[in-house]
Amino acid sequence: METNRVVTAIKALLPKEDFSPLHEPLFRGNENKYVKECIDTGWVSSVGKFVDKFEADLAAYTGVKRAVAVVNGTSALHICLILGGVKPDDEVLVPALTFIATANAVKYCQAEPHFVDSSYDTLGMDPDKLDQYLGVIAELRDGFCWNKKTGRRISAVVPMHTFGHPVAMDKMQAVADKYHLVLIEDAAESIGSFYHERHTGNFGIIAAMSFNGNKTITTGGGGAVLTNDEELGRMAKHLTTQAKVPHRWEFVHDAIGYNYRMPNINAALGCAQLEELPAFVEKKRAWAKKCAEGLKDVEGIKFFTEPEGAKSNYWLNAILLDEACCKQRDELLSALNDNGIMARPIWNLMYTLEMYKDCPRMDCSVAEDIGRRLINIPSSVKLGDNA
Amino acid sequence: METNRVVTAIKALLPKEDFSPLHEPLFRGNENKYVKECIDTGWVSSVGKFVDKFEADLAAYTGVKRAVAVVNGTSALHICLILGGVKPDDEVLVPALTFIATANAVKYCQAEPHFVDSSYDTLGMDPDKLDQYLGVIAELRDGFCWNKKTGRRISAVVPMHTFGHPVAMDKMQAVADKYHLVLIEDAAESIGSFYHERHTGNFGIIAAMSFNGNKTITTGGGGAVLTNDEELGRMAKHLTTQAKVPHRWEFVHDAIGYNYRMPNINAALGCAQLEELPAFVEKKRAWAKKCAEGLKDVEGIKFFTEPEGAKSNYWLNAILLDEACCKQRDELLSALNDNGIMARPIWNLMYTLEMYKDCPRMDCSVAEDIGRRLINIPSSVKLGDNA
Repeated sequence: METNRVVTAIKALLPKEDFSPLHEPLFRGNENKYVKECIDTGWVSSVGKFVDKFEADLAAYTGVKRAVAVVNGTSALHICLILGGVKPDDEVLVPALTFIATANAVKYCQAEPHFVDSSYDTLGMDPDKLDQYLGVIAELRDGFCWNKKTGRRISAVVPMHTFGHPVAMDKMQAVADKYHLVLIEDAAESIGSFYHERHTGNFGIIAAMSFNGNKTITTGGGGAVLTNDEELGRMAKHLTTQAKVPHRWEFVHDAIGYNYRMPNINAALGCAQLEELPAFVEKKRAWAKKCAEGLKDVEGIKFFTEPEGAKSNYWLNAILLDEACCKQRDELLSALNDNGIMARPIWNLMYTLEMYKDCPRMDCSVAEDIGRRLINIPSSVKLGDNA
Repeated sequence: METNRVVTAIKALLPKEDFSPLHEPLFRGNENKYVKECIDTGWVSSVGKFVDKFEADLAAYTGVKRAVAVVNGTSALHICLILGGVKPDDEVLVPALTFIATANAVKYCQAEPHFVDSSYDTLGMDPDKLDQYLGVIAELRDGFCWNKKTGRRISAVVPMHTFGHPVAMDKMQAVADKYHLVLIEDAAESIGSFYHERHTGNFGIIAAMSFNGNKTITTGGGGAVLTNDEELGRMAKHLTTQAKVPHRWEFVHDAIGYNYRMPNINAALGCAQLEELPAFVEKKRAWAKKCAEGLKDVEGIKFFTEPEGAKSNYWLNAILLDEACCKQRDELLSALNDNGIMARPIWNLMYTLEMYKDCPRMDCSVAEDIGRRLINIPSSVKLGDNA
């Protein structure tokens, strides 16, 4: 691989600008109007019409029965795990290749992350390999799945839709069913991504979403809990609003809750962004298509395209270096960044981090290989403008 | 007490409006301008100049060495307890009369809240009574304080400045020193409140603040960690930003961190509000003075005024019913609310809540008495306009 050729090929696709960020938000609709309305009316905080509207609009777009707006994707994951029944000292199956929040949320429940290998097709959990692995290390007893080695209960599995590309959720569901695992989706990156025409977040019993500033749409900071179970939805709202029992004036709380609600001013931004979302997804897909075409003949790299059965939001575009070139990853990262093209590798594998190095895990050779070879390149919505 | 007379007396002080909320935010400065700047430049999220400015301005106003902006007061408390060295199975001394977040934050550390009685002078912790109590139930061993009854370590004490009125922090510090307790301030309600001319949040090793929508100034949702210890400040920033180690592209995290950072759009609101804060505090004090004067001859109630040595922000104004009238509390609450005057009692005592009923506690007869007799009345900044 000649790194200069790769840089030149990517540069040729990008608009002529000094700097192309990895992902910047696009505000061109009602963002200022709705946010100004919050400030002018004084309704900026924990209750307000934009929170209700954002939740209703998000539920309508994704097709879930209930969406609960929260302060960020990490808090959404934490609530999903609690409501998924994860208890202290349980193990929770999470990808080895994910953003740190997936593993941290398990720790917030005083449970242990148990790391799962990735699939080359989706960049997410490999359900076949997981099935095989659980067949060896797990046993079913009393209606639960137990890790024979550690003696701990494995209570849940949390596939994450990497860069917006859906995991093979039909197979994932089959594995969860077979081993009596609660299926929870980490859909932090996948707003606008569909799997067999159903929006991500509709497959597990509950799902977490993120609207951080680097996501396809943003609320500044924010996230959501999605579910098709009305009771779980009610409990998500209750737990994220400090478990306060409604009363004209009394302060009664009936559980240890959390202050995870999204402020109205952030929801106002979100309402405006949701109005744009279908167009944004089309732009991102157009930009991904342009990249795929433009990079198809560049030696040494392959542009990652959506898995079969999926319609991805292409949140972050990714190229995979050929096996032979993976030693040049950092050289290419330097060259891209030096040329004003923001690029980054995929996350460090969770079990390479000090605090997770002793956690249980399967053979993660695919995740390790992807980790060595993947580079994210600029993916902002606006890049789709002339694509 | 004739409830009608109390209602009439309070109504006479309020502007002629159909409804007087307990506390509404006031936006009359640069709020729209700064927030619009975030949206127009795209910098709404986790980094941005307003976060840095808000932290610097807040540190300057309060006089601490370092302020770290976070997503709300609850998350600030959580981080304060972690950095204060609270470990699982420790006990932490917190007020019996406080908002639920103080106790919940202890539980987030897997520690046990241990409830402390209040003082009639400050509505906060009574340091003399606490001293006497610890003299009976605690022993010092290996440089730590141990609860002789439960066998657990008592690691910290968290006074909360109720409705903005500072706890007697000199005495509090003496008790903390005597029993080797880490002193952490819950200053969620006390931005703009000073004790012996030092701003609250400067007395413990670390302090938590809130900028929720009902506070003196607001960021929509938000909070801050304040400290005079630079290393604790650095760690607060690190832990609240997912413990990510700075690197040009790599994702290395060196601890289990949290996604607690305040988004730039919320900090923008905060920067504008901080510019107004000194004027807001004067307005709130003027309104409190007007209430104190206007209610001084009303039979059966007493307006609560700031403790000796303190200059309070009078975040929420409070009246205390005379002992003989406490049975009429709910009657008065109904009458006030029915007349468009929003009023509420103080929080239910923590140990009356199901999840905290078995926690250790001292005799809390003063807190119980205050709980029966206190009512908060409208306290918004704008009420000081013609006061």
